[in-house]
Amino acid sequence: MANDPAGTPPLLLTPGPLTTAAATRAAATRDWGSRETDFIELTARLRRRLADLAGGDDLVAVPIQGSGTFAVEAMLGSMVPAEGRVLILINGAYGKRMAEICRRIGRAYRKIECAEDQAPDAKSLDRALHADPSITHVAVVHVETTSGILNPLEDIAAVTARHGRRLLIDAMSAFGALALDVNRVKFDAVAASSNKCLEGLPGISFVIAPKDVLSDAAGRAPSLAFDLHDQWRGFEANGQWRFTPPTQIVAALDVALDLLDAEGGIVARHRRYQANLDTLRAGMTGLGFRPYLPEALSAPIIATFHPLPNNSFEFNAFHRGLLDRGFAIYPGKLTAVPSFRVGCIGQVFPADMQRFVDAVSALI
Amino acid sequence: MANDPAGTPPLLLTPGPLTTAAATRAAATRDWGSRETDFIELTARLRRRLADLAGGDDLVAVPIQGSGTFAVEAMLGSMVPAEGRVLILINGAYGKRMAEICRRIGRAYRKIECAEDQAPDAKSLDRALHADPSITHVAVVHVETTSGILNPLEDIAAVTARHGRRLLIDAMSAFGALALDVNRVKFDAVAASSNKCLEGLPGISFVIAPKDVLSDAAGRAPSLAFDLHDQWRGFEANGQWRFTPPTQIVAALDVALDLLDAEGGIVARHRRYQANLDTLRAGMTGLGFRPYLPEALSAPIIATFHPLPNNSFEFNAFHRGLLDRGFAIYPGKLTAVPSFRVGCIGQVFPADMQRFVDAVSALI
Repeated sequence: MANDPAGTPPLLLTPGPLTTAAATRAAATRDWGSRETDFIELTARLRRRLADLAGGDDLVAVPIQGSGTFAVEAMLGSMVPAEGRVLILINGAYGKRMAEICRRIGRAYRKIECAEDQAPDAKSLDRALHADPSITHVAVVHVETTSGILNPLEDIAAVTARHGRRLLIDAMSAFGALALDVNRVKFDAVAASSNKCLEGLPGISFVIAPKDVLSDAAGRAPSLAFDLHDQWRGFEANGQWRFTPPTQIVAALDVALDLLDAEGGIVARHRRYQANLDTLRAGMTGLGFRPYLPEALSAPIIATFHPLPNNSFEFNAFHRGLLDRGFAIYPGKLTAVPSFRVGCIGQVFPADMQRFVDAVSALI
Repeated sequence: MANDPAGTPPLLLTPGPLTTAAATRAAATRDWGSRETDFIELTARLRRRLADLAGGDDLVAVPIQGSGTFAVEAMLGSMVPAEGRVLILINGAYGKRMAEICRRIGRAYRKIECAEDQAPDAKSLDRALHADPSITHVAVVHVETTSGILNPLEDIAAVTARHGRRLLIDAMSAFGALALDVNRVKFDAVAASSNKCLEGLPGISFVIAPKDVLSDAAGRAPSLAFDLHDQWRGFEANGQWRFTPPTQIVAALDVALDLLDAEGGIVARHRRYQANLDTLRAGMTGLGFRPYLPEALSAPIIATFHPLPNNSFEFNAFHRGLLDRGFAIYPGKLTAVPSFRVGCIGQVFPADMQRFVDAVSALI
């Protein structure tokens, strides 16, 4: 079954890789010459579409080979100058990862940490920026996949802008489902990936930034592969990727964006994911599971649940039982309490979430 | 035709992306949970198979998301300590790229450059290592795709070992077709990619190294994503990739390795590529084209040709004419003379090369 590579995979209720549309995967079945006209046109179209999703004519999208973390590392290394300093807002593993990247690539940083079930507080940010004029950039995760918490981007962006600092956003698990418009949330760069809410295949990530921000990034990155300025100039020079792109993954993302359009864009996708989450929360609560986050802080991306009280919970057995019934879920990633996580994104619909709840019901 | 994404792509006579087998591409049509048992098993099998191709029980393969250049950057940053110094042997663009990577990531380097139609000379290497005891590593490209030249790895490895220095190999366009056995060519690391002679889809690359070399690399990389030690420890800890892998590309590479086995392994693939090159050289020479390299220096990977003498040559028109006939080729990459390049790798056979020669014949 699930262990047979030729068999039907489980429905992936995970934060990615996630279940994609057959049409998206079908786009991966042809070869492309990456320096031929048709692929150059495909890349240009894709870059334009990605930038348009973030709402600004002056924005450009710089795709980069690899996973989302690659884009985050490229963003931090290309946007923060060697003499800069980043203030990182942390309420989970992905905020911590940005701090670890800064440590590795030699960029100075400070942290504001809060509990994993709390959103970063705009007042603390305000105080920190006031206290330390050496901070040049603020970095924050839009939806922290550790818990599924929605961070208050607009407030954070407003405070950051008021202090004249620059905002870097890890929007990995939000981009394409939660609106992020540069006209409302002033940012210097946002990093995301092909394989979250855009529902493409995993293998490329991207950074979207205003042109002038990219121009200023020349010569800054402590890396050849992760130099966003050079990657951008490469695209502008001849339309080609500097280094071999994963052609099939690029083509599949273009099809995935067709499907996003056909669904009704970000608003409609948000609505479907929200319906997924609502079905999931209602069903699981009905079975006695308590959600880790209050509804107001829950992004419709992934939900964290406490195990049933008074019930011995063993994640591996629970996971295996669900897999036998056709569903893959994730263990909790919280540092403090035992938990498990159920994703709401991908080619997944409320009826699937109901089937999942029924499967859980049969298991407990 | 070639510009119709839904249409039949041209035969890619390029150094990658290249024409792959339908079975390999078909493996990209299912979703995988990257933290599920079946994908963990797939990753373990793939890593073992890649290490086995380099011939040593003590070797481990560390795949990394992205293009081949990503693996080369990861290799240089993870293997060369901050206080080390690399001597880079350069006879083309990929040797130069290693120097550029070292410059960016802050690793000291020296260069020995020779002409693009000459192989690096073991005697010069010997003198350089004798003269500069601060050199800790030697870096060389196995087949320099700039020209298609085969560099004398065994001689270089012998000299490097005699001086007690460590060898790093960019085997990008050779691995899987030209034998590279750690028992004959002592190396500290070799970098290659899914999408060259292994005939997988583009999207992952890998570094193969002895276990003790990887152990010594702890804490060394000036990058999170490109830390080969941590990537390796991640695989060893739970079998999973640290960051989201391109699942479809991983699955396709496993199928591509099945096809390599079925063909008869590296020896048989070498033989087919050599037959491709022989057919190409004979046919093109018969039409009056002069190969850039003498036969003894030509790797069966990609061939560079001078334009016909006494014939106005315009690459774009030539390229377009061939594309209309179903073949994609590459422009020359030489710094000194006009040229064009024709790849011999991928799902391409001598009959294809003959058809290509016929197409050229009809064009000139």
